[in-house]
Amino acid sequence: MPSTDTKQLPVSAQDIAAAAQRLDGHARRTPVMTSRTVDARTGAQVFFKCENFQRMGAFKFRGAFNALSQLTPEQKRGGVLAYSSGNHAQAVALAGTLLGVKTVIVMPLDAPQVKIEATRAYGAEVITYDPKTVKREELATRIAAERGMSVIPPYNHVQVVAGQGTTAKELIEETGALDYLLVPCGGGGLLSGCAVAASHWSPACKVIGVEPEAGDDATRSFRSKTLQSCNNPDTIADGARTPSLGSITFPLVMHYVQDMLTVSDAELLRSMFWIWERMKIVAEPTGVLAAAALLEGKLDGRHDYKGKRIGVVISGGNADIKALCRMS
Amino acid sequence: MPSTDTKQLPVSAQDIAAAAQRLDGHARRTPVMTSRTVDARTGAQVFFKCENFQRMGAFKFRGAFNALSQLTPEQKRGGVLAYSSGNHAQAVALAGTLLGVKTVIVMPLDAPQVKIEATRAYGAEVITYDPKTVKREELATRIAAERGMSVIPPYNHVQVVAGQGTTAKELIEETGALDYLLVPCGGGGLLSGCAVAASHWSPACKVIGVEPEAGDDATRSFRSKTLQSCNNPDTIADGARTPSLGSITFPLVMHYVQDMLTVSDAELLRSMFWIWERMKIVAEPTGVLAAAALLEGKLDGRHDYKGKRIGVVISGGNADIKALCRMS
Repeated sequence: MPSTDTKQLPVSAQDIAAAAQRLDGHARRTPVMTSRTVDARTGAQVFFKCENFQRMGAFKFRGAFNALSQLTPEQKRGGVLAYSSGNHAQAVALAGTLLGVKTVIVMPLDAPQVKIEATRAYGAEVITYDPKTVKREELATRIAAERGMSVIPPYNHVQVVAGQGTTAKELIEETGALDYLLVPCGGGGLLSGCAVAASHWSPACKVIGVEPEAGDDATRSFRSKTLQSCNNPDTIADGARTPSLGSITFPLVMHYVQDMLTVSDAELLRSMFWIWERMKIVAEPTGVLAAAALLEGKLDGRHDYKGKRIGVVISGGNADIKALCRMS
Repeated sequence: MPSTDTKQLPVSAQDIAAAAQRLDGHARRTPVMTSRTVDARTGAQVFFKCENFQRMGAFKFRGAFNALSQLTPEQKRGGVLAYSSGNHAQAVALAGTLLGVKTVIVMPLDAPQVKIEATRAYGAEVITYDPKTVKREELATRIAAERGMSVIPPYNHVQVVAGQGTTAKELIEETGALDYLLVPCGGGGLLSGCAVAASHWSPACKVIGVEPEAGDDATRSFRSKTLQSCNNPDTIADGARTPSLGSITFPLVMHYVQDMLTVSDAELLRSMFWIWERMKIVAEPTGVLAAAALLEGKLDGRHDYKGKRIGVVISGGNADIKALCRMS
């Protein structure tokens, strides 16, 4: 365990325990799946925490609901704004609807129509912008200021991280102590939250984050101990196209995470189809990052994982199946 | 309830209870899934029994294991033969391996190589034949006689039907009494077993079988009360290309099933992709027959199902995803 005093860190196990209470009865307690085929293939005992079965199809609901449920009555009246073309948009929209909070999602004009419609269907107002001429942060800040709305960022937010950490808390409650926990990493909200949870509820567990090879900013940040970024990386893992870890997630990753690994898009697709066909579950490319690292042997030579108990977070399932089939 | 004396019928709830004990610790107790989206879309409370998560990917394991586990020591030494190019082949192969019984599967030369290999991987000897020149029943009977092997048919067998019936027993144990139970129908092994189980463990439950439109022999048999057949029907639901119900399954269907419905291949594919993308589970075309009948409104005007508790069996998940994507 590194020597940083955890009291200086922005998210604690207590924050995650409190988030779990808020989520109780609202988020789905997603199933933990096992597979004899996976155990035989990896030589380990593997537990998949299936957040593809979470409400709106990804872990993002946890963080969004936890953050929105802690707004003051006045903030709730003002409403919430988020900018995202992915799962965070739908998560904020659904959490807002459930909590009676108006939501506005700022999305690029060229976002897939199906995602814009899904976000509207969950109850949000969608404002589109031209990404060639407009910076989304500026637009979002301006609209939020004009309308008196609170901005909920997708990962660099204490209550969002605490919400995502409930994923690992639930997993460990069901499986008991783990030797390893593998978690997909984009902006690090899920990874850092899960790492905080594991450090408390399964203290000997080594937490490993997994990124797409083309978007390896967190891996480079982790190795160099200095925040690195990666602008709009070209990867099929669209949930991990984030430019870098954030001011909240980076120190948590540095303190609680033991290793970072990357997988190529080809490895990711191969593992994704294998999981679809062999485990009979649909997970999106970003969702199988951690599983792919295990299945593609990325731990070999770095970690003594044979015969060990390994948790793997499948983070989401919002895959465009036909488009992914055409791609492969 | 029809007036036939159930004592004359070949499979009883006691047979299913005994099968459940034999399967305990060997078959997977598959999850029951619910979906707010499905409930909202159908106006009912729907419980999916997910046999796509069963060992080897389909309910067929239940019947095969139950049948093989009741062979005499001498029959076990002689080994088991089955003819199938589908899930029954893999079910018999896996059950044989688990029970230490040698298995031979007779498959057509033109069966997909992947299925032949999967069957071998589960431990069976595969004997291929040219379907243009050889009748598989004759070949199978001849090999079984020469080698002293027992033939386990895919559905028309008391212990196979009893094994499949454990699917509905488990479902009802988890959900409590149901108003409806929808079950895919090929040769009627799963349907008749589940109908026997429902009549005992949820007596007021109406059981409905669902077939592909092109292979509607059981529906016509049910309506005319005379066994009808359908030779090699052209449907994407390859598990329901069986020519007819059997001497064991037909009387059970007549006695315990309340209605039969059909769905077209287009409806089947549409429902299948919807289930993949919205419920995040992979099910094969035959596996979603019952779900498609519900989702495509086939109960409308025939059954008062709104607000009711409906069980739906998803019978298998061995889908060739890329091939199905190309087809749609």
